[in-house]
Amino acid sequence: MTPLFEAVPNFSEGRDEKKIKRIVESVRSTPNVRVLDLHTDPDHNRSVITFAGDEEAVLEASISLAKTCAGEIDLSRQTGVHPRMGSLDVLPFIPLKDATMEDAARLARRTGEEISALGFAVYLYENAATAPHRRNLSEVRRGGFEGVSARVGDPLWKPDFGPSAFDPRLGAVAVGAREFLIAFNAFLDTDDVEVAKSVAGKIRGRDGGLPGVKALGLEVGGQAQVSMNLTDISKTSLPEALEAVRAEAAKLGAGVEWTELVGLMPLEAAVATTRFYLGLRDFDRGRILENGLWG
Amino acid sequence: MTPLFEAVPNFSEGRDEKKIKRIVESVRSTPNVRVLDLHTDPDHNRSVITFAGDEEAVLEASISLAKTCAGEIDLSRQTGVHPRMGSLDVLPFIPLKDATMEDAARLARRTGEEISALGFAVYLYENAATAPHRRNLSEVRRGGFEGVSARVGDPLWKPDFGPSAFDPRLGAVAVGAREFLIAFNAFLDTDDVEVAKSVAGKIRGRDGGLPGVKALGLEVGGQAQVSMNLTDISKTSLPEALEAVRAEAAKLGAGVEWTELVGLMPLEAAVATTRFYLGLRDFDRGRILENGLWG
Repeated sequence: MTPLFEAVPNFSEGRDEKKIKRIVESVRSTPNVRVLDLHTDPDHNRSVITFAGDEEAVLEASISLAKTCAGEIDLSRQTGVHPRMGSLDVLPFIPLKDATMEDAARLARRTGEEISALGFAVYLYENAATAPHRRNLSEVRRGGFEGVSARVGDPLWKPDFGPSAFDPRLGAVAVGAREFLIAFNAFLDTDDVEVAKSVAGKIRGRDGGLPGVKALGLEVGGQAQVSMNLTDISKTSLPEALEAVRAEAAKLGAGVEWTELVGLMPLEAAVATTRFYLGLRDFDRGRILENGLWG
Repeated sequence: MTPLFEAVPNFSEGRDEKKIKRIVESVRSTPNVRVLDLHTDPDHNRSVITFAGDEEAVLEASISLAKTCAGEIDLSRQTGVHPRMGSLDVLPFIPLKDATMEDAARLARRTGEEISALGFAVYLYENAATAPHRRNLSEVRRGGFEGVSARVGDPLWKPDFGPSAFDPRLGAVAVGAREFLIAFNAFLDTDDVEVAKSVAGKIRGRDGGLPGVKALGLEVGGQAQVSMNLTDISKTSLPEALEAVRAEAAKLGAGVEWTELVGLMPLEAAVATTRFYLGLRDFDRGRILENGLWG
């Protein structure tokens, strides 16, 4: 089977619908590519496209996307809450069916080299990183455009591809290879962000909580939110994460009012959630009608 | 798009693995047909194949299946708990993507006519029935082979196709068109079948319970089981049915220990279950990665 990849580029425009439409169209019009999701955020002035295809199709769509971002977005005039560093800001590749993480890292390197020819400074991150200190995306983009600009003279932070003197309209882009992650947020029945922060501190893997769970306590729209990334649902599934949030929130007299998924989840996540809560034995994706029709 | 159909034939062999394999192979070897599931039951001496494809492929596979059942199974020598009436016993067609119930009823009539030429007596049932009293499968097959044989002289019960004097090796087959149904069983933490019967009586739609839910209380392997068919998950979903079972069982001091799915569920059922228990807003099948890749 042809190895498939998912790309989840973030670009620094979340307000101008015409620009966003043209940027998305540059991806959608690439042969053999499917746009799976679009999330736009006016507050952060930022959008996220999810698309998928084989290696050559995803490479071509990514170059097309970078060109369109370069034409549509002037980073030097862009404002928003998010500490962005590029007009095309982050470009992760995720291995899907029949693809390995090495395949995705190769795709990241090929794409990084190609889009540096357009004038972008490119940092390779996570499984595509060229040095251990560049693996962590939050380290690479610390301080946004201004932070990265201040570090670029340091040999430790020379871009992997492209100019060391940034084009202020384009900036720098982080291109990486990573595992699929599920972005899952639980809204609590309180406006006290300290409750969300405390719950997040209890459940996040880094602090001894659940493996494969990243968590932050935030206030969103006047409501306390536990914002999670699940990076390995074979270690901690959606129901396990949610039940941990419920249990920790209950200790503080709070509850979960509703939840949201940002982007997509793999079928496996819905199958595991269905198995967990229904108490099903012997239930796997082979028991989903469409899996057999489509697989 | 090409209309797709599912077929869920039941045949009267659940013990002889070589025979079962040859029967399944006669379906699997038909071009453009996918075998999605096989369930064999030695106690009932009965198997259920689930397969899917376009109209012509499903018709061809069904004829091939009937021929192989006629060659492999001698109903006059067959024994088992189930009140079977034919070697190929029941053959329902379910409209899937881009197919209507009328399409499925036409497929049932075409198939019925073709397999009657092999010597089977054929009764059309449910949405393919030629008279109201033949719609209900349990009425058509009441009493099994012996019951149907006794009624066959009555003009009300003349077969729709094929001989009125049954071939004792082949018997009669019910060929129909119906909605997809989910066969879902809840095992209680008691061996008291009366608890299961009472719960089933409270939740079944026919007796004023949940719409689109058929339910029976059974004893299976020494454990009380509420055996359900969900015929319309837009009216009553899996979680709604299960929570009703839990609530009614709790009133009698019992609980649900585990559950089982017989056959398949559509993706929509897992999506609805995931949405319900996680408390997700704005979650539909478009948020399942594979739905976009495969659809």
